[in-house]
Amino acid sequence: MECNRIGRRTVRLRRAPSVVSHACVGGKMERNGPLSAHFDELDDDPFFAQKTWELGESELQRRAVGHALEKGSLSAKDLDFLFAGDLLNQCIGSSFGLRDFGVPYFGIYGACSTMGEGLALGAMLIDGGFATLVGAVTSSHFCTAERQYRAPIPYGSQRTPTAQWTATAAGCCILGAQGQGPYVTHAVCGRMVDLGITDATNMGAAMAPAAIDTLEALFEDTHTRPQDYDLIITGDLGELGHKAVSELMERDGYDMRNYTDCGLLLYDRAGQDMHAGGSGAGCSAAVLNGYLLRGFREGRLHRIVFAPTGALLSPTSTFQGGSIPSICHAVVLSDRKEGA
Amino acid sequence: MECNRIGRRTVRLRRAPSVVSHACVGGKMERNGPLSAHFDELDDDPFFAQKTWELGESELQRRAVGHALEKGSLSAKDLDFLFAGDLLNQCIGSSFGLRDFGVPYFGIYGACSTMGEGLALGAMLIDGGFATLVGAVTSSHFCTAERQYRAPIPYGSQRTPTAQWTATAAGCCILGAQGQGPYVTHAVCGRMVDLGITDATNMGAAMAPAAIDTLEALFEDTHTRPQDYDLIITGDLGELGHKAVSELMERDGYDMRNYTDCGLLLYDRAGQDMHAGGSGAGCSAAVLNGYLLRGFREGRLHRIVFAPTGALLSPTSTFQGGSIPSICHAVVLSDRKEGA
Repeated sequence: MECNRIGRRTVRLRRAPSVVSHACVGGKMERNGPLSAHFDELDDDPFFAQKTWELGESELQRRAVGHALEKGSLSAKDLDFLFAGDLLNQCIGSSFGLRDFGVPYFGIYGACSTMGEGLALGAMLIDGGFATLVGAVTSSHFCTAERQYRAPIPYGSQRTPTAQWTATAAGCCILGAQGQGPYVTHAVCGRMVDLGITDATNMGAAMAPAAIDTLEALFEDTHTRPQDYDLIITGDLGELGHKAVSELMERDGYDMRNYTDCGLLLYDRAGQDMHAGGSGAGCSAAVLNGYLLRGFREGRLHRIVFAPTGALLSPTSTFQGGSIPSICHAVVLSDRKEGA
Repeated sequence: MECNRIGRRTVRLRRAPSVVSHACVGGKMERNGPLSAHFDELDDDPFFAQKTWELGESELQRRAVGHALEKGSLSAKDLDFLFAGDLLNQCIGSSFGLRDFGVPYFGIYGACSTMGEGLALGAMLIDGGFATLVGAVTSSHFCTAERQYRAPIPYGSQRTPTAQWTATAAGCCILGAQGQGPYVTHAVCGRMVDLGITDATNMGAAMAPAAIDTLEALFEDTHTRPQDYDLIITGDLGELGHKAVSELMERDGYDMRNYTDCGLLLYDRAGQDMHAGGSGAGCSAAVLNGYLLRGFREGRLHRIVFAPTGALLSPTSTFQGGSIPSICHAVVLSDRKEGA
């Protein structure tokens, strides 16, 4: 059998699937943020011309996939598989958003790590010869997330200083067996890590240990250091989680100077008052499929670690006093195809 | 590139991963049903010694994985990946049930099709050389499902004649690159099909078109007929969905005499009054990982199509008047390794 693994946990993608197309769509807050120029579409209507916020979130996914297909001169029929998921109960953002494309569909649930999970699985299916083109898509929506996880927006609930702002955004990345790059060269599937944090308004703290577990596995397995990449980027730990990962990994001997977090990039944190930063599956998906992948095309980036994190809780588990199992899936994107 | 696909949609698993171990756990109703002898454990306590029904469902998954590992003389460390999901909001049955195993974890969401999705993805990762051993697990629980989808049990809501009974059960299947079979030889990833059914108490009718879409793709791509298999088994369409699939596929020229449904097998429908039959992700998972896979070991079965179906709705989408996107993932299990 071919050896497609290195070290304990890292998958090496020998044929290194390529990013073929990518797109992201956002809302009003995203328009007002520093990455607005990197979106394919920004729409100030939180309903996205639908009847409900949930159908609006579905519309976000539909538009993100539509833009990605169009930019890649592709039609839905060209896709062998779609991987998608979101934060809504039973992932209806994805099922209602994507049902009309008629593409074989694998629903995934990784909370805010969903884009990482979809890319890892999609890259393996292409590398293994099971697919030629695979799409990965996810979304989040501030109004649907508040209603579901916390309280409906019209209640005007006070947010804690540790809270993050759920992005109203969707991102879609299409991977292919052929393409001009950047390429997915490695992937690490996360393990669930739960160190007992029960504060559902401090997700960054809950998810930081999962990010460390996955990033350190990747660096050890590939014998690389953070300095070997242009950027190490998690999503969405926000300010507190980013600080925890930086400090703890520096204690473990890693130089974390080129480490940042999608939740720190999407909004103007001084001007927009987003507390601890952005979050939501759509945050890392939009930052990747806008700012980061454009960075490759424009020559600003050559090799990065994209490592979105997810908090695998629900309001029910929080009401029952449960802690927060967290996970982080990482992929290495590089403009050079060869593996480690 | 190797050709691992045949026809439009079918994946051919050239190295045909083997079932290495399997187990299922159920509750009181499952003990009273005709398949009780095929369970590894039956527990009459709906809490499974936990504080809440949701934690009880997590415990069901934990026990199912524990039994499967033990029966295969394996430890959790031997597993390269776990695929899991369930019907609870944010899939907490899986995250809280499996977090302590420390296995790299891909959360999936396919509603009641989850066991089929996990087997299809797990088989591809093994076949592609990315893993040696992969577990697929899912569950459902009557009390958590009623509380979440309909009304809490103590309300004593009347059930409609078309309603199905959510199984309190979990199943775990461990696939490996090596093994004595049965082997996963083919997989078809489902497409979402939504013909506009809005009655969330008649899931069988909603999901039948998805089952037909996937089964007919498999038969066409592999140039096989239903008679070439010992059994074609969907899950969980119940009586009405089974009738719809039988009639519509017979109209398309298929002989459906050896077609049945997991929801028709799990309970004694006359004696237990389960209305249209069993349902829930745990229903097909338990029937597969008990009755069906034992059927291979005992020589009763040699080649089957296992095609669980999922209804990708949520209570929110139903309240908003939405119809029911449905999906069906199929795998072929055979005691002979060669592909078609």
